[in-house]
Amino acid sequence: MSEYQRPPVPRVGMVGGGQLARMTHQAGIALGVDFRVLAGSPTDSAARVCGDVQLGDDRGLADVSAFAKSCDVLTFDHEHVPEPVLREIEDGGAVVRPSRAALQHAQDKLRMRTRAQELGAPCPRWRAVTAIGQVEAFAAETGWPVVLKAASGGYDGKGVWVAADSAEALTVLQRAQENGVRLLAEEMVAFRRELAVQVARSPYGQLAVYPVVETVQRDGVCHEVIAPAPGLDDDKATAAQELAIDLAHALDVVGLLAVELFETEDGVVVNELAMRPHNSGHWTLDGARTSQFEQHLRAVLDLPLGSPRTTAPYTVMANVFGGTDSGVYRRYIHVNAKDPEAKLHFYGKVVRPGRKIGHVNVAGGDPADLLARARGAASYLRGDED
Amino acid sequence: MSEYQRPPVPRVGMVGGGQLARMTHQAGIALGVDFRVLAGSPTDSAARVCGDVQLGDDRGLADVSAFAKSCDVLTFDHEHVPEPVLREIEDGGAVVRPSRAALQHAQDKLRMRTRAQELGAPCPRWRAVTAIGQVEAFAAETGWPVVLKAASGGYDGKGVWVAADSAEALTVLQRAQENGVRLLAEEMVAFRRELAVQVARSPYGQLAVYPVVETVQRDGVCHEVIAPAPGLDDDKATAAQELAIDLAHALDVVGLLAVELFETEDGVVVNELAMRPHNSGHWTLDGARTSQFEQHLRAVLDLPLGSPRTTAPYTVMANVFGGTDSGVYRRYIHVNAKDPEAKLHFYGKVVRPGRKIGHVNVAGGDPADLLARARGAASYLRGDED
Repeated sequence: MSEYQRPPVPRVGMVGGGQLARMTHQAGIALGVDFRVLAGSPTDSAARVCGDVQLGDDRGLADVSAFAKSCDVLTFDHEHVPEPVLREIEDGGAVVRPSRAALQHAQDKLRMRTRAQELGAPCPRWRAVTAIGQVEAFAAETGWPVVLKAASGGYDGKGVWVAADSAEALTVLQRAQENGVRLLAEEMVAFRRELAVQVARSPYGQLAVYPVVETVQRDGVCHEVIAPAPGLDDDKATAAQELAIDLAHALDVVGLLAVELFETEDGVVVNELAMRPHNSGHWTLDGARTSQFEQHLRAVLDLPLGSPRTTAPYTVMANVFGGTDSGVYRRYIHVNAKDPEAKLHFYGKVVRPGRKIGHVNVAGGDPADLLARARGAASYLRGDED
Repeated sequence: MSEYQRPPVPRVGMVGGGQLARMTHQAGIALGVDFRVLAGSPTDSAARVCGDVQLGDDRGLADVSAFAKSCDVLTFDHEHVPEPVLREIEDGGAVVRPSRAALQHAQDKLRMRTRAQELGAPCPRWRAVTAIGQVEAFAAETGWPVVLKAASGGYDGKGVWVAADSAEALTVLQRAQENGVRLLAEEMVAFRRELAVQVARSPYGQLAVYPVVETVQRDGVCHEVIAPAPGLDDDKATAAQELAIDLAHALDVVGLLAVELFETEDGVVVNELAMRPHNSGHWTLDGARTSQFEQHLRAVLDLPLGSPRTTAPYTVMANVFGGTDSGVYRRYIHVNAKDPEAKLHFYGKVVRPGRKIGHVNVAGGDPADLLARARGAASYLRGDED
């Protein structure tokens, strides 16, 4: 295609071909920018729909570096590009947003905790642990059970373990060391519920913060999100938003920052950080003036940010997980007929039990009603009500 | 890609690679269906972004027929596939929605007027004309000027002419005959304003009707749309919606039907029909629970239709036309900063003066304010305020 035929717009490259890239592609279409993805497989969620797909290893230097050279701005669908790779492509002159320096706080929980503590952000008590004696000393302060977390990665498909006693902690510690995984111990927070807040930040320094949402987790997996978090008092909501803003500034985040929080009796404490569009913001597709995907693109392109204002009093998102029946599409008929206001977002994935294959948003006035409807639709789509 | 790797979802093929296909692609991503386009060029609006593009002649039998065979359902971005081509692919067993029999009423204004009159739909007085004497006889009843329309196509890039007198009518008639264009004469309607209403209809027979909108035309080109039409009395609005519903039923439309109307002192009269997503429905992307593009896909897939409910009291759409400066992207900075609530939708087109390259939606409470903002953004993006 000759340059004459290409409108003079920037090309954004997203590393990783998952559903976040898929939904960012939708936003890129409206903005009219060139959007391309680096995907591991043509069957990746974004690769199935995006017109400009580069196939390659989305964690390896050669492919990420070549991809970066083809783009004006590089951003990410996931946090799995190793730091040395990021360093080399930045040294090579690529515009990487968020930068390696920022992203390390989403890649490595030890660095995140260290930095958050330096900044005075409220955190659970925590300690880096390499020997069982350290875990026991920590538990002597906080009590059992103790939460053990992989600083990055994990083993057996997990990165978080709850150890009820020293024997359980020893097993985790040994298996982690066999797998070359560094651990940190965290106190078990007595939380009321889990919250999340997203903020977008541009290189210019502009910020746009979304309302604080409630995330409903089961077995450590997010199932539903209620936006905004019902009954959250204004002081706590403002404090959570200010915390996210302060972290975004201090860590020099460009793009979206999601701060996952525990709500306690006294306030909130930081659980996890993500620097990309995030499951806790999928509700924005149908409940905010600017979706998190458009906002992420605006931020990494250094465009003025869009309004994060809600378009309904409440929006509830429910993740759709695969069940044992792959025939999800034929369930559309009933789920659409039952609730013409439910918005389906599917990721083009082959169904496997427990795999996140889409989500449903329902917007309206009564969060309990919306939660029941979104949960019901997601459950029906999984096949639970057959 | 093996069947195992392809989720069992239908494949919808859209003939034509324009902006309507581009925006339908966005809706198809959320629904998780396979969506492909038949585009004339890789630089077509939809071809720039869609992951599954077939290049070919989107009006010719060979390519449309091969494309139809690769899809479960065939639908259209435009009305330009000739009737004999449609007949042949339907005879070959393709599922064509809307069907050839329905689509002819959007392809041929003589057939549309004939059928609308049979159905008792309110129309301007009209007559098929092949000789100047017929135009003069018609004008003797309606008065001059007379509107002359090409039944299909046109010449010199136009399909509608206003003839002030017999001499002007003769010129149009002669040039039309030289170009093999059939004409009809229509009375010049003394309208207050122009309206449009969209209805979706599924093969099952379900209908979903959008609010009646006001369309603001200049030089025969739609510039803005205000949804719903301000100050339209309920009786007229209901009558217009019922008219659209009746036409959709009677013409056996599957997919979207747009009915363009003149509002007169007494009621409404039918101006034009389109059987596809339509410029008068672009506001639904940011102002309705279900966008027209998703609705069209639902209808042609025979899924239950989505809610056409508005999500704001008013939404105003302004088309963005190209100016003399191709650097539209750098104008994003100012237009986004000025109005963080304005939603941009760009079509990935190279800028040419007068070419429709995108649109802006603004939703809120006060239609005059929204119109000023949408118009201002579109004007600025064109380059008028430099």
